[in-house]
Amino acid sequence: MSLADSPARQEGSPRGRPRSEAVERSIIEGAIKLLEDGVPLAEISIERLARTAGVGKATIYRRWSGKEELFVDVMRATEPPDTELPGTSMRDDLIALLEPLRQRGLASRSSALLHNVYAQIKSSPKIWAAYQAIVIEPRRLTTFEVLRRGQRDGELRDDVDIEVINDLFVGPMLVRAVMRPDAELPEDLAEQIVDTVLAGLRPDRP
Amino acid sequence: MSLADSPARQEGSPRGRPRSEAVERSIIEGAIKLLEDGVPLAEISIERLARTAGVGKATIYRRWSGKEELFVDVMRATEPPDTELPGTSMRDDLIALLEPLRQRGLASRSSALLHNVYAQIKSSPKIWAAYQAIVIEPRRLTTFEVLRRGQRDGELRDDVDIEVINDLFVGPMLVRAVMRPDAELPEDLAEQIVDTVLAGLRPDRP
Repeated sequence: MSLADSPARQEGSPRGRPRSEAVERSIIEGAIKLLEDGVPLAEISIERLARTAGVGKATIYRRWSGKEELFVDVMRATEPPDTELPGTSMRDDLIALLEPLRQRGLASRSSALLHNVYAQIKSSPKIWAAYQAIVIEPRRLTTFEVLRRGQRDGELRDDVDIEVINDLFVGPMLVRAVMRPDAELPEDLAEQIVDTVLAGLRPDRP
Repeated sequence: MSLADSPARQEGSPRGRPRSEAVERSIIEGAIKLLEDGVPLAEISIERLARTAGVGKATIYRRWSGKEELFVDVMRATEPPDTELPGTSMRDDLIALLEPLRQRGLASRSSALLHNVYAQIKSSPKIWAAYQAIVIEPRRLTTFEVLRRGQRDGELRDDVDIEVINDLFVGPMLVRAVMRPDAELPEDLAEQIVDTVLAGLRPDRP
């Protein structure tokens, strides 16, 4: 997968108006192209971004407060789209929430470039923190909602700390997708993790 | 915890003879001191290490093939000691295997320095790969042994892929200890993870 093929951002930035979406997209695509061409993040200035997208610097500053904010949108553009939750059961919702992590793992395996982009973003504490707050944290909150609903509906134990429960589902997928780049990511991994953690690893008694 | 207080390496390097252990220790402690003083990894040469420890360069090269190999031993010196497995049950052994990860998480929380050392080591792909192969991989193999024994003894399901089982136990601890530096690491976390994954998260039927 090439970064340029990545799904486009799903929502407009709060500063953008609908009619300027095409401009925003061309700025973000320009940023992705620079990274694809191997330009280090440190050498990508607002001026260079403006030149690449064929717009004025003011056009960029009207939409983003600076490079950090812009690159969070770049990261968002490389993310697999958030799947809609089926809402049929907690189990199905959890699988839908884990699947994008597997997709992201697959994407960074097939693209050395995407892998390098993540590494560069992580090396900038400001952009990484913004990415965590804007992209990761909302997903985490959604997962907590799904888990609490599961507890209310009797699908989930309520005697274990909800943060621990969250990590029991998310941890195994993250470790495979992000921390161990050689680990396999079979198609049914999200399902396997959710079903096994729900059922437990003790053998069935006869 | 200061790096200098870290547990010393537990085994001699294959190149070292017992009588030279004190020399090796002083070289490793010198390396740790340089990192503690904020000297970037890139600026620490064998020459500087020799000067710091008060030995000749040849003394270092007799023990390590170069900087990479030496810094794997430095990393090892900052690791919590591998606990001996109690061997009473798979459950107890798994808890003993997860606990050092929690300890490492606690150590890098209390020491910004240790945190920086990890970050520097990770930024060197050669040292990081050596660390994975020499420190992490043996632990992983021990865990697989414990899991297989659990399957033979009827403590663990045998219808789930053993690598997935491994990640169900290790993933939640790694995510908390390493990936989310703000996550809590309560004293009974290893126990909570192992017992909950074994029992499963479905509510007990009445």
